[in-house]
Amino acid sequence: MNLLKNIAHFDIILASQSPRRRELLKGLDIDFRIEIIDVDESFPNGMMGVEIPMYLAEKKANAYRSIMQENSMLITADTIVWHEGRVLNKPVDEADARKMLSKLSGKTHQVITGVCISTLRKRRVFHVISEVRFARLTETEIDYYLENYKPYDKAGSYGVQEWIGFVGVEHINGSYFNVMGLPVQRLYNELKRWAE
Amino acid sequence: MNLLKNIAHFDIILASQSPRRRELLKGLDIDFRIEIIDVDESFPNGMMGVEIPMYLAEKKANAYRSIMQENSMLITADTIVWHEGRVLNKPVDEADARKMLSKLSGKTHQVITGVCISTLRKRRVFHVISEVRFARLTETEIDYYLENYKPYDKAGSYGVQEWIGFVGVEHINGSYFNVMGLPVQRLYNELKRWAE
Repeated sequence: MNLLKNIAHFDIILASQSPRRRELLKGLDIDFRIEIIDVDESFPNGMMGVEIPMYLAEKKANAYRSIMQENSMLITADTIVWHEGRVLNKPVDEADARKMLSKLSGKTHQVITGVCISTLRKRRVFHVISEVRFARLTETEIDYYLENYKPYDKAGSYGVQEWIGFVGVEHINGSYFNVMGLPVQRLYNELKRWAE
Repeated sequence: MNLLKNIAHFDIILASQSPRRRELLKGLDIDFRIEIIDVDESFPNGMMGVEIPMYLAEKKANAYRSIMQENSMLITADTIVWHEGRVLNKPVDEADARKMLSKLSGKTHQVITGVCISTLRKRRVFHVISEVRFARLTETEIDYYLENYKPYDKAGSYGVQEWIGFVGVEHINGSYFNVMGLPVQRLYNELKRWAE
């Protein structure tokens, strides 16, 4: 049984390498497949906050346009960690990851995911913001996390579903799944309302 | 490596049948084992809100006292769904579950977990409250969830980590893990500060 009969005729494609995003989309009980094309994730200087993940979600959608068929529905997304007016990207090395986690420690940051749903005829782009408050982390805790979890593929150097999220995240205001990488409740709503 | 050296000499016992609670405690990277004793989960009439899960967490701790050793540290917990001045317990049947989900639909409720950490010498009881806002659920969505997920072992008739949490939970204010059944960040803090 699929509740979303309005999009049942589409071949849904998730354009993401992230195992977390796959798991999250699976949670909506819809059928989809994965396609991976390498996309340059740079964005113009001066772009701020929500503009960035929305721009990148659309940029990814553009990169996939050549493989789209009449019945394709593509889902692209990008998640950023936004802290004190700056993006925290994936860390380049251990020192960088340590620096990011020290910055996040004891403070509140925003996790913003931009999502683009597109077919050959139509495109819908939106974003969801969640606020995450970190407890004050000790150096020993940061060391333990880096050594045991190696969060080098993660924006902001942390995965909320890992040990650091268990011991370090004091409070979330918004969607936990959005912090993991995909705002599934909002996405479900957008899919439910899709008419074409 | 265990960061919590202050409690390394304890034999930690989790008194819970809930696979979710086991998974959550595992996330703290501490060693523990499970012990199950049946405990009557009734509470006195007139008890309100946070009093209830704290009372039940202590009641469970009392029931386990006879199996405790000098080096035992027991963790007991109880989670309730509190909505418009009433507890929503585990549903008794499908009709009851349907009624609860209809009540939660389109509204905000509180999930409150009471936790008791106890040794033979000392006891610490605390609670954590999270606010959960549900989207308006259609009857078809409620039917789909009940049929496919059978949430009859769950307080309030829903599991936030299941489909209904993905499509239905619009917003959380507080801890997602608390809504799942154990406020791990607060628990970690309490364990870290444990001195005996």
